[in-house]
Amino acid sequence: MGEKPRWLRPHGSPWRRGASRTIYENPWIGVTEYAVTAPTGAPATYGLVRFKNFAVAVLPLHDNGDTVLVGQHRFPLAEYSWEIPEGGGPLDADPLESARRELAEETGLQAADWREVLRAQLSNSVSDERAFGYLALGLSEAANPAGHDDTEDIRVERVPFREALAAALAGDIEDILTVAMLLKASHMAREGLLPPDLAKAMMG
Amino acid sequence: MGEKPRWLRPHGSPWRRGASRTIYENPWIGVTEYAVTAPTGAPATYGLVRFKNFAVAVLPLHDNGDTVLVGQHRFPLAEYSWEIPEGGGPLDADPLESARRELAEETGLQAADWREVLRAQLSNSVSDERAFGYLALGLSEAANPAGHDDTEDIRVERVPFREALAAALAGDIEDILTVAMLLKASHMAREGLLPPDLAKAMMG
Repeated sequence: MGEKPRWLRPHGSPWRRGASRTIYENPWIGVTEYAVTAPTGAPATYGLVRFKNFAVAVLPLHDNGDTVLVGQHRFPLAEYSWEIPEGGGPLDADPLESARRELAEETGLQAADWREVLRAQLSNSVSDERAFGYLALGLSEAANPAGHDDTEDIRVERVPFREALAAALAGDIEDILTVAMLLKASHMAREGLLPPDLAKAMMG
Repeated sequence: MGEKPRWLRPHGSPWRRGASRTIYENPWIGVTEYAVTAPTGAPATYGLVRFKNFAVAVLPLHDNGDTVLVGQHRFPLAEYSWEIPEGGGPLDADPLESARRELAEETGLQAADWREVLRAQLSNSVSDERAFGYLALGLSEAANPAGHDDTEDIRVERVPFREALAAALAGDIEDILTVAMLLKASHMAREGLLPPDLAKAMMG
């Protein structure tokens, strides 16, 4: 990498936090309303959704170019969603450890080679949710896969990477982390940033 | 497109909604807690963050291969964030119209050629937020750009597409819609899905 472009630097004043009141807490999120001062100096009220976990997303890549997708009904949008293995990990834990656990729990796999390829803010005007995305290479059966929780009814499918990528490009996969991770892995495969045999197998 | 792969079909039972109570409302979001029955049949409580707008994201592409980024302090993560033009549009309005408005408001530009290239769910285990992403081509100055609201203090920079893409790949841009849209546009440019002169200018 060369020097970072000059335009990337911050400009202007940050938001300032004033008084707050906690409105809601459950095991996954909290909602707090803040009196704030905007960067313009204008007073405002801000309802912040606080996440109690990081989101972790794992793109597993088998040596033959297959990936693994997880299908489930999602409550908030009342839709069925195919996604790469994803879950939440405690804010005070290494997200990589949470990613290892999610991969084992959802797919029964472990990986010899983990690569962090994404740090993302998912809805940064409303929530503080952060996501970490990993490629999981060198896959094998996990020694002792843990179980799902009692609300999870998931379907696991091993499919060619290019078929998963095509589904994301066609709009049949809408989960944004899955879309971004498939596109990033495709980019890395083309740019020579993955093992050459794997890249070849992925792109078919 | 050929036939869709068979694995894409839904499996199992959807979630069932029971009694609900509204916990919070502001102009942008609401929070409702539901008694639910999970696909496994297990009873549970679900705190849903309801969005009152669609997210719209616009990747402007000048004929010379430049794009336009917007910088601002974001309250929820207390960080400065460089993003493509983004905003919210009413659920009952055409998201394309909301995208046109956001582009004009934030950058003073209008586009002759709009292409919807992304529909996404941003945090589908907690919220019902949906996003629509557009490429804006054939750019010119907007006849009558509207103003910002009084809490917005944004910086607008016209930068080469490949420089914006590099910033996203390096992790200097973390907004997930921006990352996904830059990667998708790069993919389209390489795959011959954009006007050839534009694709050539974008990829440098």
